[in-house]
Amino acid sequence: MTDLARGRRNDPHRRDRIIDACLDVIAEGGVAGTSHRKVARAADVPLGSMTYHFDGMDELLHEAFTRFTTTVSERFERRMAAAPDAEAAREAVVALIVEDVLGDARELVLTHELYTLAARDVRYRTLTAAWMGRSRAALERHFDPETARLLDALIEGLSIHRALDAVAHDPHEVIAGVARITAGNTLRASR
Amino acid sequence: MTDLARGRRNDPHRRDRIIDACLDVIAEGGVAGTSHRKVARAADVPLGSMTYHFDGMDELLHEAFTRFTTTVSERFERRMAAAPDAEAAREAVVALIVEDVLGDARELVLTHELYTLAARDVRYRTLTAAWMGRSRAALERHFDPETARLLDALIEGLSIHRALDAVAHDPHEVIAGVARITAGNTLRASR
Repeated sequence: MTDLARGRRNDPHRRDRIIDACLDVIAEGGVAGTSHRKVARAADVPLGSMTYHFDGMDELLHEAFTRFTTTVSERFERRMAAAPDAEAAREAVVALIVEDVLGDARELVLTHELYTLAARDVRYRTLTAAWMGRSRAALERHFDPETARLLDALIEGLSIHRALDAVAHDPHEVIAGVARITAGNTLRASR
Repeated sequence: MTDLARGRRNDPHRRDRIIDACLDVIAEGGVAGTSHRKVARAADVPLGSMTYHFDGMDELLHEAFTRFTTTVSERFERRMAAAPDAEAAREAVVALIVEDVLGDARELVLTHELYTLAARDVRYRTLTAAWMGRSRAALERHFDPETARLLDALIEGLSIHRALDAVAHDPHEVIAGVARITAGNTLRASR
């Protein structure tokens, strides 16, 4: 039995752990500063197991950002599923935008690292497109497709502008924006 | 007279050219891949003139992104100033969002490189905050301050979602979004 096979049997979650460690390394030093060596050290696995589990840095980055976007999407889907009607969905959207600004610096950095990759390399747009698709589908429980797309874009823009401004924004502006963009909603009952 | 002083007299736009070259190098290989050596080569200046003109990479990056955001802001201000009334301003906003998606890959990459810097390092938020401030001021020729902020956020979100999706979006959605978000405009006459 090779060391790698032994490692795999004794450590069945190794591949998973490498993916999580890769996200930590990206959050800390950016995609450009991410190497097999740094990720192996962060995951506490031998360098050789990196090439055993992943075909190269592109596969690892793709898997890492897939996990990141899936985690964020699932949280969003749970919030939208928990809302009994469109009014509650509006309130949940406002809460997530207003909380995000206090929120997670790690998530902000990982989002923009992914957007920068996707801006430069069309292969990463499958990830950003899938992420948008899931967000819109979650919103379509409560809103017609056009309203869902517009609301998704407004969430994006307000979150970025709140995070990257030098001054705090009034939460009232978020309430007003969500009300205006969903005023034309033609979906009559939440699903 | 030193070589640097001579270079400066014969080449008064050298500092300017270094800043432009820096943006080219960032667009090509990202902030993380940007070095004094690469920028000097792209600007066709001796490596020594980099340290003569800039106190370090942070000053150079700050100047480069200041030039980038100033250029984009001035174009936006010209478009808003050319609109005789709020209706024309709405049409100009729609046109710029719809054109941006075909538009400039360089601008898309530079925007996300800056956002990634600002997400990680609060010192770059003076740049993103100033950019937002200029956009909102330009929109306030035609819209009240709250409408201007919301419209600015919608422009951001729609531009990103159109650029990073895998499929083309219907321009009608942009027209509808701008109409909805500006429906509450309380500024009665454009300035």
